[in-house]
Amino acid sequence: MDLNFGEIVLWELMGTAALILLGCGVVANVVLKKSLGFAGGWLLITIGWGFAVFVGASIANPTGAHINPAVTLGLAAADKLEWDKVPAYLVGQFVGAFLGAVLAWAAYKLQFDTHDEPENTRGIFSTGPTVPNYAWNLVTEIIGTFVLVFWILTSPTMTNEGGVPQFGNSALGYAAVAFVVIGIGASLGGPTGYAINPARDLGPRIAYAILPIKNKGGADWNYSWVPVVGPIVGAVLAGLLSQILPS
Amino acid sequence: MDLNFGEIVLWELMGTAALILLGCGVVANVVLKKSLGFAGGWLLITIGWGFAVFVGASIANPTGAHINPAVTLGLAAADKLEWDKVPAYLVGQFVGAFLGAVLAWAAYKLQFDTHDEPENTRGIFSTGPTVPNYAWNLVTEIIGTFVLVFWILTSPTMTNEGGVPQFGNSALGYAAVAFVVIGIGASLGGPTGYAINPARDLGPRIAYAILPIKNKGGADWNYSWVPVVGPIVGAVLAGLLSQILPS
Amino acid sequence: MDLNFGEIVLWELMGTAALILLGCGVVANVVLKKSLGFAGGWLLITIGWGFAVFVGASIANPTGAHINPAVTLGLAAADKLEWDKVPAYLVGQFVGAFLGAVLAWAAYKLQFDTHDEPENTRGIFSTGPTVPNYAWNLVTEIIGTFVLVFWILTSPTMTNEGGVPQFGNSALGYAAVAFVVIGIGASLGGPTGYAINPARDLGPRIAYAILPIKNKGGADWNYSWVPVVGPIVGAVLAGLLSQILPS
Amino acid sequence: MDLNFGEIVLWELMGTAALILLGCGVVANVVLKKSLGFAGGWLLITIGWGFAVFVGASIANPTGAHINPAVTLGLAAADKLEWDKVPAYLVGQFVGAFLGAVLAWAAYKLQFDTHDEPENTRGIFSTGPTVPNYAWNLVTEIIGTFVLVFWILTSPTMTNEGGVPQFGNSALGYAAVAFVVIGIGASLGGPTGYAINPARDLGPRIAYAILPIKNKGGADWNYSWVPVVGPIVGAVLAGLLSQILPS
Repeated sequence: MDLNFGEIVLWELMGTAALILLGCGVVANVVLKKSLGFAGGWLLITIGWGFAVFVGASIANPTGAHINPAVTLGLAAADKLEWDKVPAYLVGQFVGAFLGAVLAWAAYKLQFDTHDEPENTRGIFSTGPTVPNYAWNLVTEIIGTFVLVFWILTSPTMTNEGGVPQFGNSALGYAAVAFVVIGIGASLGGPTGYAINPARDLGPRIAYAILPIKNKGGADWNYSWVPVVGPIVGAVLAGLLSQILPS
Repeated sequence: MDLNFGEIVLWELMGTAALILLGCGVVANVVLKKSLGFAGGWLLITIGWGFAVFVGASIANPTGAHINPAVTLGLAAADKLEWDKVPAYLVGQFVGAFLGAVLAWAAYKLQFDTHDEPENTRGIFSTGPTVPNYAWNLVTEIIGTFVLVFWILTSPTMTNEGGVPQFGNSALGYAAVAFVVIGIGASLGGPTGYAINPARDLGPRIAYAILPIKNKGGADWNYSWVPVVGPIVGAVLAGLLSQILPS
Repeated sequence: MDLNFGEIVLWELMGTAALILLGCGVVANVVLKKSLGFAGGWLLITIGWGFAVFVGASIANPTGAHINPAVTLGLAAADKLEWDKVPAYLVGQFVGAFLGAVLAWAAYKLQFDTHDEPENTRGIFSTGPTVPNYAWNLVTEIIGTFVLVFWILTSPTMTNEGGVPQFGNSALGYAAVAFVVIGIGASLGGPTGYAINPARDLGPRIAYAILPIKNKGGADWNYSWVPVVGPIVGAVLAGLLSQILPS
Repeated sequence: MDLNFGEIVLWELMGTAALILLGCGVVANVVLKKSLGFAGGWLLITIGWGFAVFVGASIANPTGAHINPAVTLGLAAADKLEWDKVPAYLVGQFVGAFLGAVLAWAAYKLQFDTHDEPENTRGIFSTGPTVPNYAWNLVTEIIGTFVLVFWILTSPTMTNEGGVPQFGNSALGYAAVAFVVIGIGASLGGPTGYAINPARDLGPRIAYAILPIKNKGGADWNYSWVPVVGPIVGAVLAGLLSQILPS
């Protein structure tokens, strides 16, 4: 369980790529008109992202299944992960998120080509607010991520092997995370699309800026810091609170 | 597992706050027009509340995960919880429910501000009958809560540690409760919105009365006793019946 | 685990009543216009029935959680249940199904009273074919029940305690049954409404004939033998086949 | 666990038949106008196929629950299955898929007879692209199957008994596969209908060509190689990659 830098990068990259491939995939399925899931509704999106977490976290089992910089930073803030391991996690997560978004685009290449509102495809890749307001959008992302990370830190299925918090190394633990993410998406995803993961938002945003999608819209860089900063703040608050509380 | 008054209050408060944050959140997502889940349907609501229970119960694991005065009273009526511990549970539950509702409002602040029917937002916070009739509305709440508490008392995953009934201290037990609550919501939520939990209804109702929502409607205090009394009656009946039955 | 006649009746009755209360409840929620789940769609119905099985089976844990005469007869046909225990199971199941339907009606009393098409409420209680044809309707019910009972007989979670097949005495086993029933409902429920359980259909049909629902329609006794005979045939075929196959 | 040729054929046949019966069944339910699930949406389809996998995999437990030639070939490519066992798996899978499709047709016989667009019923049996393009359709099928098989090969619930990879011989393992398949369907099913299994596509396509459905359309043999070749390529890539990666 004592992984080196490269192994952490590898498994976090594979897991995060799977997460984003499936996560951006379900939004593409609902948004793009030539998809079989077109107009499939919010429940389809939240279930799709939930099981995307299940797949990605299972694959990233060797590293403790973070696949989210907010989780990594929350665990470090809670003194459950050594800070010198953090960079390897972050590298794997951001690179994996970018690659996953490219794969989702490849899977839906023909649907992008035939979609008649290409300027409205950014939401397939990255999140955005329905009512823009930096302060309140931040509040929403902070609350959502706090719930995720606080739950992880207090989850009865969490164990600690070799200094790495683990979801009990089992499908049950990853199903539990999936249920939590479905819950957060159903309940707190309405205002900003629940990034609750800086890599989930920034990686695909960069991919959208680069990918050859005809007549695509802008990547909305003005908003891009909110789904990075909000989740980090929420996660660190959860990490610090978990240290104060009696267990 | 032998917690003092403050520890019981703390964990029931944290768990119930998470429950209500996510539970009221999913209704806000479906009701408020600027939400991504607007008009998402009853299944989205029941799944949202179900996984809200999963998150809240996991967090309240140290106290046996009641997060519902009806569960606390049902366990006491079944002689599975000492009556002198009941007050700490109730304090945590009602305060947590109030705080969770405030957090749900904060997460959806902009959606409340831009919603064009603010007088119809009470249903985001507390329950109400589609056909008002105190007697039959009570019947519905009694039946729904009876199912919940009777299932808890007979569940094969329940264990008893240190005098506190426990869902086996595991994600599986909490997933089971979530499935039961999804089932009750899908099946018995139609007439009154399935409070089946006095704190779930009263805490957010008080929050609605206090929160600065422009042009909001009334809190419907006339009905407010039904989702308190009904669940208590249903839970105590389940507790007493479980004592009579051979096991 | 060696239960007497009365204990078998009791727990099968409680479990089957919970199954039918929640099962008929979800159909009432979708069909009756003053319900919050009105027009909620087939997925809501199948998920409602699936978790109804979860609740009912958990409650009937002491008896091996049949709550379905087809399961009881299938197990007997597979030589996994003594035939002299069968009558107690059947009594509990049919009486419980009747009582569960009465409770579902009570929970939705006001919605029945205010529904403007009372002649079309039989489907809340018992099943019926979209295209009537006794032979092919039988085929559909036989296939659906065969899948259920064959799965039970070969399920890796099944154990055998004291001569009574058990779902491992655990929430996981009952979740597995719920998933199977959701699958059968989603996939094979389209033509006849998937009774796959004689008690589930006949008990509520009798309740519908008796209950004081104003201007209600007929109970369709002509069709009533199909959802009794079909499931029995399917279950016995599954039981016999499981005995022939090498394990 | 050391099964002979006939036993492998038998259990793979039974499991794959159940998979396809339920899988084609849910599409029939959504497509055919006289079905109760008509127009039930993509989420119903993905959940139906997911629990179809749950049922089929549980039944095929003795053989390691492949029920998919891509899984069999991926495991062989990863050196986790002896190549001389592969033919028995493939025979069971293709024959089972054909039989399952015939059973699904039988369950929906009356709905086929009364459907007013019989020329559009091929999609109930086999998959097809919304935007035809062999190269990109292949890419989509390769990506989807890669996710499935790579997840299987790295799943924390996988064990290895007697040289046969196993999902831990438990309902939890099969629920995990079901969640993954729901995730892939929700996320990557939009462009081509996610065959991700050569038997799932070819078996029912042959059945469609043979079955006496009045005024049916063509079986689209031109496309039929894509959902065979794509899944095999994706699976073998996953198998090879899993051998290269450090575990």
